[in-house]
Amino acid sequence: MSIKKLKEKYLLISKYNTAATLLEWDFETHMPKKAAEKRAEVIGEISSKAFEISISDEMGELLENADKEELNEVEKAIIKVGKKEYEKFKKIPKELFKEMNISSSKAQSAWEEAKLKNNFNIFKPYLEKVVALTKKMADYLGYEENRYDALLDLYEPGLKTSELRKVIEPLRSFLVEYLNKLDKGKKTNNSILKEYFPIEKQKELSLRALKLMKYDFDAGRMDISMHPFTTTIGPNDVRITTRYNEKDLNDSLYSTIHEGGHALYEQGIPEGFSGLPIGDGASMAIHESQSRFWENIIGRSLEFWKYFYNDLVDIFPEFKNHTPEEIFKAVNYVERSFIRTEADEVTYNLHIMLRFEIEEALINDKIKVEDLPKIWNEKMKEYLGVVPENDSEGVLQDVHWAHGSFGYFPSYMLGNLYSAQFYNKMKKDIPDLNEQISNGNFEIVLNWLREKIHSKGKMYEPGELVEIVTGEPLSSKYFIEYIENKFNKVYEL
Amino acid sequence: MSIKKLKEKYLLISKYNTAATLLEWDFETHMPKKAAEKRAEVIGEISSKAFEISISDEMGELLENADKEELNEVEKAIIKVGKKEYEKFKKIPKELFKEMNISSSKAQSAWEEAKLKNNFNIFKPYLEKVVALTKKMADYLGYEENRYDALLDLYEPGLKTSELRKVIEPLRSFLVEYLNKLDKGKKTNNSILKEYFPIEKQKELSLRALKLMKYDFDAGRMDISMHPFTTTIGPNDVRITTRYNEKDLNDSLYSTIHEGGHALYEQGIPEGFSGLPIGDGASMAIHESQSRFWENIIGRSLEFWKYFYNDLVDIFPEFKNHTPEEIFKAVNYVERSFIRTEADEVTYNLHIMLRFEIEEALINDKIKVEDLPKIWNEKMKEYLGVVPENDSEGVLQDVHWAHGSFGYFPSYMLGNLYSAQFYNKMKKDIPDLNEQISNGNFEIVLNWLREKIHSKGKMYEPGELVEIVTGEPLSSKYFIEYIENKFNKVYEL
Repeated sequence: MSIKKLKEKYLLISKYNTAATLLEWDFETHMPKKAAEKRAEVIGEISSKAFEISISDEMGELLENADKEELNEVEKAIIKVGKKEYEKFKKIPKELFKEMNISSSKAQSAWEEAKLKNNFNIFKPYLEKVVALTKKMADYLGYEENRYDALLDLYEPGLKTSELRKVIEPLRSFLVEYLNKLDKGKKTNNSILKEYFPIEKQKELSLRALKLMKYDFDAGRMDISMHPFTTTIGPNDVRITTRYNEKDLNDSLYSTIHEGGHALYEQGIPEGFSGLPIGDGASMAIHESQSRFWENIIGRSLEFWKYFYNDLVDIFPEFKNHTPEEIFKAVNYVERSFIRTEADEVTYNLHIMLRFEIEEALINDKIKVEDLPKIWNEKMKEYLGVVPENDSEGVLQDVHWAHGSFGYFPSYMLGNLYSAQFYNKMKKDIPDLNEQISNGNFEIVLNWLREKIHSKGKMYEPGELVEIVTGEPLSSKYFIEYIENKFNKVYEL
Repeated sequence: MSIKKLKEKYLLISKYNTAATLLEWDFETHMPKKAAEKRAEVIGEISSKAFEISISDEMGELLENADKEELNEVEKAIIKVGKKEYEKFKKIPKELFKEMNISSSKAQSAWEEAKLKNNFNIFKPYLEKVVALTKKMADYLGYEENRYDALLDLYEPGLKTSELRKVIEPLRSFLVEYLNKLDKGKKTNNSILKEYFPIEKQKELSLRALKLMKYDFDAGRMDISMHPFTTTIGPNDVRITTRYNEKDLNDSLYSTIHEGGHALYEQGIPEGFSGLPIGDGASMAIHESQSRFWENIIGRSLEFWKYFYNDLVDIFPEFKNHTPEEIFKAVNYVERSFIRTEADEVTYNLHIMLRFEIEEALINDKIKVEDLPKIWNEKMKEYLGVVPENDSEGVLQDVHWAHGSFGYFPSYMLGNLYSAQFYNKMKKDIPDLNEQISNGNFEIVLNWLREKIHSKGKMYEPGELVEIVTGEPLSSKYFIEYIENKFNKVYEL
């Protein structure tokens, strides 16, 4: 039976992936600093071993042969996803992969320097090289309508640029206008979250939030890293990290809840899928829908704070002077700002649209790398009404392009849209959802996500999944509804 | 150049070893418990990959060809040690390795159950199997005088059973007699170390001890595990673990110092040796000499406590009521006890001799597995004057035999002897050593160890090394002197 052998091969690869992932996790969380230099080489060796097996001719034959056998639904999905991955890597010449690795590594160093020195020109030639290689890759991967489709498909399988535009356009108009509306609402601020909060207590608060969400600490753990992340080391081993800022309660708590959302997804994928091509989230954006769901739709709701208020006051008694409503307003403070990663729910997607439009134009030769700073600032002015004072806070703020991760940014926005669309369906399925949340019953939320989304792993493309779950294709309608509903309250409109 | 290719091959192997070692470290320190089941398989896969390369024909050819090239001293040592390792594994049929792995794994489970239920018969058939396989291994490895030599050589390269006996016999007579003498000394006890000591404070004390020893925290870290250990993940990454018992200050502090001694050795091996056959300690016993040196000769000295007393009182002010002399006496309390791992410096080697004599007799068919409990108890009576009430506290206390690690126990004793012999030489080289230690100058100690021992890595066999360092072959004379000198003070003889 080829299907049996194929599964064994995937499980073998997954062992190397476990080792590589643990080496990376350790790099970010525990490794003594002098060990850094050599560690990258070890990660490289182990990862390339996994990659080598995954693109071997034997793997290709197993996939072909297994496809001819009598298979159940799950096995069919394994073949479908496995073949797509296999063919993708077979299409791109090894030399191009290598060139990309070297160029993106150099581009990252140049980006770091450029950002530090606030000088886009340092980054420019390296970015040009990465863009050129990315275009080559896209051409090898192939597309029908738009070269950018080939890249988008790497992160959001099946989604077309034209479809993405249809979702974006009404959303952009709404957001730009709605921001103006908020200016006329009742002023609010987030100063109560910017006092002094000892790290040990913040950790306690984060752990309580994770427990409430039913994150399984026997199948994961929480550590500290510079940039919070979630990583699946192996079956029953899904770890998150967070970070602490003594003068910002928002940062650690919502980083933790966000990563907790990713982790619940991973912990909810059936154990039998583990290590197989379907043993993943459906896409980057569906993954992001889970983290944003917990972070924003749950964690930044009034209902959440009605319940979690007691924990907050228990750990930080100074909040006795504030009501759950005040905290709700503080965590939903909206600001026209420069930095994507610090953006609120209303402005966040505008930051993404700007990046999507720029990268789509770059990949299709409609603009040049040298024009990026100018275009960036123009679009900032148009969408957000503010212009960064320097490129470090503008076009140089994100590392993604240095990595060659074109096509990735839309996932962040799509995650927000999916989460609102799922939320809309969840409210229909659980009519007293708000009350349940106010009472701290987060299990009902998790169970719904488990049944509808987590348990499916990567069996379906995101477009299929959203239809299965909500009965409709992706739409920005529910996100718009959600934003209006929430921020009208926050700003008393 | 074959030597260049050979080194590259070793560095490749070392990458897999880094991955496997990190997976094991994580298993013992951080891994969520539900991940345990699958983790062992991952460690197995990565380790066997490293092993596969190390015994490949290509490796054998590289060793042969490099040996014919013009080499420097370090390269010659690489070939010498590398060839010995290579040939050792080539001599043993793969099937036998496999059988041993399976049998020892089963034996370990049986041992756990037998110990829990205090029933040697549960363990007996499994141990018989492991002993039979070990004898086969020894025969494949080969020996001249004594089958046990083949096993001893695995841990203490070059040492013969007959030589070991010559060292042991005078030591045993002395220790048995000296224990009787101590009975007539002034009574002492360790009750001041058995109060309540919060874990956070114990951790602080352990960290201060490591800092004093100049353990490099930028090239290592300290975590918690059930059984303390030291592990070298890779270059500049030597980690230790310790454990805490709220009612025993002794346990964490001396576990930390012990592991710190191992770690200083590893941190002191030249970076250029890393990953190569010479990038290790000279032997198990030389390694143990370093840990025991810091734990006992330094850490349990009056001079150490004259200096470290201030740190102790700073963290645990209750010790203000005791003098450094009282603490010195408490940490050197001698007791005729059953458990090797809890034994003091006077009785410890007697526990080892008993094990050595039993395992040497087993391997040479002079006794049978079924007779072990009886022989154990007879020897306990003879050497230590006490007999355990049950086998769990007797013959079943150690896991080593279940693992098939025959030949390992003597390393513990040899470590004590080497440490005293090194100490004797150090005192000659540094006439005011005691004063230096009282003043907290541990760097002078470390520098001596670095120059004489650490910097040599595994270039020399332990027998050669001890001659190079001290000008004499291994002897128990210095250990006897050291014991008398110290415990005459403790017991006011």
